[in-house]
Amino acid sequence: MAPSDRNREQARVALEQHLGYGFKDRALLNRALTHRSAEADHNERLEFLGDGVLNFTIAAALFEQCPDAPEGDLSRLRASLVRETTLAAIAKEIELGAAIVLGPGEMRNGSRRRASILADGVEALLGAIYCENGFDAAKRVILHLYAQRLTDLPSAASLKDAKTQLQEWLQARSRSRPEYELVEVTGADHCQHFVSRCRLADSGDSVEGEGGGRRKAEQDAARRMLEKLGADS
Amino acid sequence: MAPSDRNREQARVALEQHLGYGFKDRALLNRALTHRSAEADHNERLEFLGDGVLNFTIAAALFEQCPDAPEGDLSRLRASLVRETTLAAIAKEIELGAAIVLGPGEMRNGSRRRASILADGVEALLGAIYCENGFDAAKRVILHLYAQRLTDLPSAASLKDAKTQLQEWLQARSRSRPEYELVEVTGADHCQHFVSRCRLADSGDSVEGEGGGRRKAEQDAARRMLEKLGADS
Repeated sequence: MAPSDRNREQARVALEQHLGYGFKDRALLNRALTHRSAEADHNERLEFLGDGVLNFTIAAALFEQCPDAPEGDLSRLRASLVRETTLAAIAKEIELGAAIVLGPGEMRNGSRRRASILADGVEALLGAIYCENGFDAAKRVILHLYAQRLTDLPSAASLKDAKTQLQEWLQARSRSRPEYELVEVTGADHCQHFVSRCRLADSGDSVEGEGGGRRKAEQDAARRMLEKLGADS
Repeated sequence: MAPSDRNREQARVALEQHLGYGFKDRALLNRALTHRSAEADHNERLEFLGDGVLNFTIAAALFEQCPDAPEGDLSRLRASLVRETTLAAIAKEIELGAAIVLGPGEMRNGSRRRASILADGVEALLGAIYCENGFDAAKRVILHLYAQRLTDLPSAASLKDAKTQLQEWLQARSRSRPEYELVEVTGADHCQHFVSRCRLADSGDSVEGEGGGRRKAEQDAARRMLEKLGADS
């Protein structure tokens, strides 16, 4: 075995220990770890499959674990658990970066640590486990990887976007809805910059927010209004 | 039994025959069929669960059935199979409308036939089957409901949006990329109307499209350009 092959095999064994799952089909494991920059037999189809089994398993776990949560809270909790940053954090915990196979261009770019490549790799591994051993095996690994995160669920309220938080805060105090107004759009067609104002008609409070789109500017304004009201705890 | 109870029970029995699945837990079936307008014990949580098992089961079926399809094609095929109009069509096939429980306001509005309520009802039923009998039972019912649609899959190319179709058509003929330009925005803040132009630099061909957002106007322009080129077969 060449030294690089030995290193790669060591990284894979470590990865399987973290997963609590050993692949019988090494070619399948290889495909799950191969980014499309490296070769034609890459992990994108497995990622598609893994995304599905992950989303569903987390949905079912939340459904069971939060019997009183309304659908909106379950959706927000799931989104926070399956988003790229969470998957990239899991990838680091299971030392996925060392095991992934990239093309020469991506290697030079330091892509081994790039969040999207790591997150896709986690999904591809889950897809491969489903392929090899079915739903129960994939579910077992997912619940193992997510054990701590499912125990320490964030509060559903903290996951609401700023505009929703602001509206609910005002509603709970029988105050009128905030008004949003576009103040300014600057910049060229493909990198426009928006400024929006959030105004409370009953108190006259007003703040401005900014961002690369109208929605983002309004969310920023709502966030600043929550701060101004001392409602951002 | 009052006549309305008898009708409802008949509608449920017909529904179970279409599903090829009989519920042991009638309270669970009742919840799956209850829209949130009718009572507090409604089907939204089950819909969340059913959406997950449906998405994943269709993803896995496509993965298996289309071994050579790239990830993008699988995604588009899945989206076409789980979107609201497809689910509403399935709801009609299984006579779901007659079995659904609505609040008095929704009954007056004719909501029994509304696509979103029917689509949500199908997902809630699938969620309830998963609850009662696990993944394999839900998967069996889904594959039964989708048997014909999985046999008659649309071509992946036909599911691409107009801008993608246009770009690929031009690329296949070694022509340069189309250019899009915003021509006009009219209307008040919350009901703006956009006009965009699609232009082919090499031939000078140019058409305009319109819609309620810039992206929609560009898609409309691309669609008209495909027509103009005779590339919309």
